[in-house]
Amino acid sequence: MSSIRIAEPADWPAIWTILAPVFAAGETYAYARDIDATDARRVWMGKPEATFVGETSDGTIAATYYLIANQPGQGAHVANCGYVVAEAARGAGWASAMCEHSQREAVARGFRAMQYNFVAETNDGAVRLWQKHGFEIVGRLPGAFCHPRAGDVDALVMYKRLTESGAD
Amino acid sequence: MSSIRIAEPADWPAIWTILAPVFAAGETYAYARDIDATDARRVWMGKPEATFVGETSDGTIAATYYLIANQPGQGAHVANCGYVVAEAARGAGWASAMCEHSQREAVARGFRAMQYNFVAETNDGAVRLWQKHGFEIVGRLPGAFCHPRAGDVDALVMYKRLTESGAD
Repeated sequence: MSSIRIAEPADWPAIWTILAPVFAAGETYAYARDIDATDARRVWMGKPEATFVGETSDGTIAATYYLIANQPGQGAHVANCGYVVAEAARGAGWASAMCEHSQREAVARGFRAMQYNFVAETNDGAVRLWQKHGFEIVGRLPGAFCHPRAGDVDALVMYKRLTESGAD
Repeated sequence: MSSIRIAEPADWPAIWTILAPVFAAGETYAYARDIDATDARRVWMGKPEATFVGETSDGTIAATYYLIANQPGQGAHVANCGYVVAEAARGAGWASAMCEHSQREAVARGFRAMQYNFVAETNDGAVRLWQKHGFEIVGRLPGAFCHPRAGDVDALVMYKRLTESGAD
C-alpha cells in the first residue's frame, strides 16, 4: 500500500475497472447492475464533493472512495462515503485505510458525523470492519436490499460522530 | 378536502407557494433554507417518479407530495415520499390523506415498502401520524438534523412494508 490521493479525471478508466465488477455483481452497492460507465462516472466522480483513489507504490490504482454530504441543508454536517477495493488488492488493508482517511477528510471539510445508509446485512466483512472503526448500527431496514442471490435482506444504517482527531 | 391528483407543470407556482415557507423555516425538511424556486422545482417535480397535489373542491391546491425510489438498483423496491400541507390547510386531514394515497400509488407502481429517511425527532406530530399509519421507527441518527432553533437533534428513519391493499 502506498497513498490515498484526490482522484483526477485521468484516473476514471482505472476507477471504472474497479467499480464495474462490483456494481455488476450487485451484492454490496445499490446501483443498477447494468449501470454504464457514463452514469457510474457521474455518481462516483460527478455528484460527490470529492473522490479519492488508493495508489500502490508502483502507481497502480487499487481502491477508490467518494465523500459527499449525506443530506442538504439541515443534514449537511453529516458525510456519506462509499468505498471499493479492486478485486486483486483485497486483504491488503485498503478498506481500513480509506475508512480512516475519509474520516480525517470529512473532519477537515467541517463534517461532524459520517453515515452509511445502506449496508447489506449479508456484507458481514464490511459491517464488522465499520464497527471496528467506531461505526454503530443505528438502523435496520427490513428487506430493503434486494440481493441477487439471497433475495430481500435487511440493510443497515451505520453512523459515527466524528471528533477533531478524525480517525479512530 | 376534495381530491389528490398528479401534479401538472402549471401547478408549480401554487406548489412553490406551499413549499417555500416550509423550506425557509427549515424545521422539517433537509433542504437549503435559501433554496430558490428553480432548485426546489427540480427536487420536488424533476427528480421524483411522480408528484401529486391535493386540491380542495374550489380548486385550491392545499397540499403536495412526491414519490420516488429511495435507492436505485437493489433498493429500488422501496419508495420514499415527502409531504407538505399549506399552512392555511393544516388540521384538515391532508397529511393522512396523502400518506394513504402515496401507499396505494407506491403499491400500484410495484414498490414493496416505503421509507422516510430523515424525520426530525422534534417533528412529533409527523412521527405520531406516520406511526398511526403503520410506519415504524427503524433507525435513529444521533444529532443528524441541525434544527434552526433546537440545534442538532436526532433524525428518525421510519419504514413500512406495503401490502397489496396499499394503505393501512
